[in-house]
Amino acid sequence: MNIGIVGLGLIGGTYAKCLRKYPYKIYGIDIDPDTLEYALKNNIIDYGTSNAKDVLKEIDVLFLCLYPEATKKFMQQNARYIKQDAVVSDVAGIKRNIIATLDIYNQDHFEIVFAHPIAGREKIGIKYSDESIFQDANFVITPIESNTEEALNLIEVLARQMGFKNVTRISDYAHDEIIAFTSQLTHSIAISLVNSDEEKYDTSLFIGDSYKDLTRIAMINHELWTELFLKNRDNLLKKIKLFEKNLDILKDALETKDVPKLHQIMQSATNKREKLK
Amino acid sequence: MNIGIVGLGLIGGTYAKCLRKYPYKIYGIDIDPDTLEYALKNNIIDYGTSNAKDVLKEIDVLFLCLYPEATKKFMQQNARYIKQDAVVSDVAGIKRNIIATLDIYNQDHFEIVFAHPIAGREKIGIKYSDESIFQDANFVITPIESNTEEALNLIEVLARQMGFKNVTRISDYAHDEIIAFTSQLTHSIAISLVNSDEEKYDTSLFIGDSYKDLTRIAMINHELWTELFLKNRDNLLKKIKLFEKNLDILKDALETKDVPKLHQIMQSATNKREKLK
Repeated sequence: MNIGIVGLGLIGGTYAKCLRKYPYKIYGIDIDPDTLEYALKNNIIDYGTSNAKDVLKEIDVLFLCLYPEATKKFMQQNARYIKQDAVVSDVAGIKRNIIATLDIYNQDHFEIVFAHPIAGREKIGIKYSDESIFQDANFVITPIESNTEEALNLIEVLARQMGFKNVTRISDYAHDEIIAFTSQLTHSIAISLVNSDEEKYDTSLFIGDSYKDLTRIAMINHELWTELFLKNRDNLLKKIKLFEKNLDILKDALETKDVPKLHQIMQSATNKREKLK
Repeated sequence: MNIGIVGLGLIGGTYAKCLRKYPYKIYGIDIDPDTLEYALKNNIIDYGTSNAKDVLKEIDVLFLCLYPEATKKFMQQNARYIKQDAVVSDVAGIKRNIIATLDIYNQDHFEIVFAHPIAGREKIGIKYSDESIFQDANFVITPIESNTEEALNLIEVLARQMGFKNVTRISDYAHDEIIAFTSQLTHSIAISLVNSDEEKYDTSLFIGDSYKDLTRIAMINHELWTELFLKNRDNLLKKIKLFEKNLDILKDALETKDVPKLHQIMQSATNKREKLK
């Protein structure tokens, strides 16, 4: 089986490294010649090109590891060159928007399985790609009506081969709702927390693991995340408001020095979080 | 030199383990016989007792590793038994309140150096004490007027022996202001985030490292943290409001789909956070 990976960044590079352990031929497609050179030199891919057209006819499974807008653009330009009966998959962190644009291709000669590997790092580029990123992480597939069980299953098998632990199928609407909470809200919080640092003192001398852990993701790829935030804006705004409501409950308990209420708020959080361990 | 540790919990146990590597005799004082037995059996202390009075006369440096209210109570009951010229230190995460109560003892026969080891875990009890907790962590001393350089220096040296990297001296007012931001605000956020989980879906299937990192500290010791929150209430309320203001700036940019503003907010956060690495 020939696997193509479009976009050899952190995620695409990790797809390649993980799948390289299996007897697949890995094609890397990237606009940056340095990235291709790095990928070839480090034996991350079997073949690299900047010209998708040249290789798409040979690729059985094509992973689009691009930002959402770039994913759409790639398909607009290259969908017609994709091999007959190929399976295409994406990695976008938002699903309604990308499905609304790309679903048209499912009437074509190949099939798209929309997916979201919930994994990343506060780094960009193939140099930081690393198989451990996917190890035991969550992988979500958002099936559409025209999907075949065969194609869904193929992407699920490949996800497990890459090290993902839970592979969940859920609607794109549900995906975007829950991801707004677990991912986009957390990034919004981390950013806002760091931006609240008045830097009156040397903050680095007064932080412990908690501040470090809560703010690591504030080192953010602003282009990708602005896309993700805006393409899931309705859900994210709802989740921010819900979070603010809970922060207000805590603030009120502080203002009224309500000890039993503070205990209850903290115990509720402890119980909910322990369930996720 | 004989070192006494009152309260062999996570922090007290870690003090003992770290200082045990030096030629000090370590006395453990704890009301729980099981804890003392565990500490003796695991060679964490040289001598253990539930009766502070019995050993205080022999102790040169006494670390009070208790919650703030318990620290005060211990001193009310036992200060008079403390050895002549001993140095006492505490570990409370808030300093104005504890200094206001304990400063009276500084006119006495021993000296107190108020300190805050900025380190912890989402676990309680000596079983989780671990030298790695203090490794390269921050340690803050809040000197008071009556402190001698000798005593301040002694606590600083011991902090470095325990593995702390930065030992900073700052006023109790400044400490409480910055700690409200780096520690109490982060815990408030983590708690509120977890409490915002509607649990409509199985959250565990849709989380990545970011959610896990941001919420780990939501597993919180509600008694200790309610004390800390209330004893630094003025500062914490200010920091929550400041954070809410920054979250509102992000929310507004989302509502108006202001791409340059979103980029700017994210880049500012990235730059500020990178400084702390």
